[in-house]
Amino acid sequence: MEILERALKSIGELDNTAMQRARERLDNLTKPKGSLGALEDLAVKLAGISGKVFNDFRKKTVIIMAGDHGVADEGVSAYPKEVTPQMVVNFLSGGAAINVLARHEGAEIICVDIGVASDVDHPGLLVRKVKKGTDNIAKGPAMSREEAIKAIEVGVVTAWESIDKGSDLIATGDMGIGNTTPSSAILAAFSGKPLEEIVGRGTGIDDLRLQKKLNAIRKALEVNKPDPEDPIGVLAKVGGLEIAGIAGVILGAASRRVPVIIDGLISTAGALIASKIDPRSINFMIASHVSEEPGHKVMLELLGLKPMIFMRMRLGEGTGAVLAMNLVEAAAKIIKEMATFEEAGVSKEEI
Amino acid sequence: MEILERALKSIGELDNTAMQRARERLDNLTKPKGSLGALEDLAVKLAGISGKVFNDFRKKTVIIMAGDHGVADEGVSAYPKEVTPQMVVNFLSGGAAINVLARHEGAEIICVDIGVASDVDHPGLLVRKVKKGTDNIAKGPAMSREEAIKAIEVGVVTAWESIDKGSDLIATGDMGIGNTTPSSAILAAFSGKPLEEIVGRGTGIDDLRLQKKLNAIRKALEVNKPDPEDPIGVLAKVGGLEIAGIAGVILGAASRRVPVIIDGLISTAGALIASKIDPRSINFMIASHVSEEPGHKVMLELLGLKPMIFMRMRLGEGTGAVLAMNLVEAAAKIIKEMATFEEAGVSKEEI
Repeated sequence: MEILERALKSIGELDNTAMQRARERLDNLTKPKGSLGALEDLAVKLAGISGKVFNDFRKKTVIIMAGDHGVADEGVSAYPKEVTPQMVVNFLSGGAAINVLARHEGAEIICVDIGVASDVDHPGLLVRKVKKGTDNIAKGPAMSREEAIKAIEVGVVTAWESIDKGSDLIATGDMGIGNTTPSSAILAAFSGKPLEEIVGRGTGIDDLRLQKKLNAIRKALEVNKPDPEDPIGVLAKVGGLEIAGIAGVILGAASRRVPVIIDGLISTAGALIASKIDPRSINFMIASHVSEEPGHKVMLELLGLKPMIFMRMRLGEGTGAVLAMNLVEAAAKIIKEMATFEEAGVSKEEI
Repeated sequence: MEILERALKSIGELDNTAMQRARERLDNLTKPKGSLGALEDLAVKLAGISGKVFNDFRKKTVIIMAGDHGVADEGVSAYPKEVTPQMVVNFLSGGAAINVLARHEGAEIICVDIGVASDVDHPGLLVRKVKKGTDNIAKGPAMSREEAIKAIEVGVVTAWESIDKGSDLIATGDMGIGNTTPSSAILAAFSGKPLEEIVGRGTGIDDLRLQKKLNAIRKALEVNKPDPEDPIGVLAKVGGLEIAGIAGVILGAASRRVPVIIDGLISTAGALIASKIDPRSINFMIASHVSEEPGHKVMLELLGLKPMIFMRMRLGEGTGAVLAMNLVEAAAKIIKEMATFEEAGVSKEEI
């Protein structure tokens, strides 16, 4: 708890003075006011985060949290549980989608085993296992409250270490067969919305498995009775270890005033937990894409964040978040490199 | 007409065999089928365009067409007409938004004076002026039919020359004070939709100017009676020189089977014209962003194209299109660099 408390103590507000200066500069650049939309809003947010009008990114990092889920036993996924460690090995060998996209965007990958059921032996893996997979949430809590806090703290520390090594733009990623189930359960606990509206087909399950998934979530909510006023309780009861780790990465990045790009449903479930633990953490979050999972849009609305990429992606791993790195960097360059009306000798709008 | 006829003769269909091979490969990569959404669809489309499953891009180019509009005299824009040549100079000096974003994405810029009212003297400018700005469409046709064809051919030739010099991914861009007015008029002519639904505030005009803009478009349609069955006629009557040039760039790229990324309202007006001249040209178009202009979404629906970036941008210049280059390249790398299930030793989904 001491690490988490330390993180929470350091999370602050956005720097309004820097944001105002950023907005003023943007309004003097050779374009109609506000005509670059979210690109301008991003430049302003980056100023609020760093306290500087001009920002650049020297080391981009995606932190992938991997964990297993007892609820996979309910038949909620189209993939067997062994795929979690297999995909971790794939991440470490460079063959997964996130590897291709991280290379493309110039980002490094940190992969953390925070709760894979089996042991993966690979020198590139950060082994910080809190538990060998969660317990089946359809039958009881996913983990103890202490384990939930420990998993959040793994995320905090991983973010801090990465920032100490120079990371100045962080993206969140996940791996864990079955993990859209706890993510949807977390959303249900916080939003109270009907499951039919917010539960999707994850990796692409058929109608039969979708029914099993809905039943598993319904049972998880009945058995565990998560209290939306107690976010760590929600996480321990119906969550996942990688979701806890992602919440920790976000809180860790926020405590160091480093912008953190949120990926799809699982990452945003982590973002929801982080926001309920400390709403100021939202200041440091940047939404990337909106996934095919119906719950994702609802989560982003709860957070008040607007996604930028609409590509019907539903893979996770951080794939949507790393694609958005290019847009974040574009925003930082716009405010820094564009000419002002005066510099370029361009007439301003007529009043 | 000879150049345009030559271009149209060379526009073909997508290569279905290559597309099927691309889809098969994508289905064998370590991810649930279809889970990368539009990124997968893009990889398939690129295969259809080039006839090859694997594609890469060595030279990315944004072609900006600049022209003036007689209808600006109706008070439809918040900016004075002199801003068109001023912004052309800004493009050539590297200070505009498109310069910043093109540098960010590694694209070169070709800027063409296809119809600026005044003369810009700059060694970097391609001067291919068809006419010193269009005539006022609220009072008569924008240009003659011959001028419209000539302007399209300027676009075709500019694309061809750029491709001859190695460009293998082209984006379209525009500059021209007042040019959301003819773009909206073109959409009205083809869609028959009420102006209130499709006309927006362009650079950010107030209510008074919006009324002037609506009146100007209404008059343009009444006076010129554009026939939707005659796309070159629509262009000549209510269009613009840069819109014609963009239509030509698209037809030129399509005739050489080079993918062409479409920017916002003005570029998509050009894409509509191109699609009505030859619907097969749509095969080679890639939609980038959806702009704040209400008509843009309608245009993309008419073309059957899905945008990927939702950032409330409304600047033009090709800014949205160059941002999408990063996504197109990501798609090309996904299909080429990801490991298959077999290579990575990852279990496939259970039936």
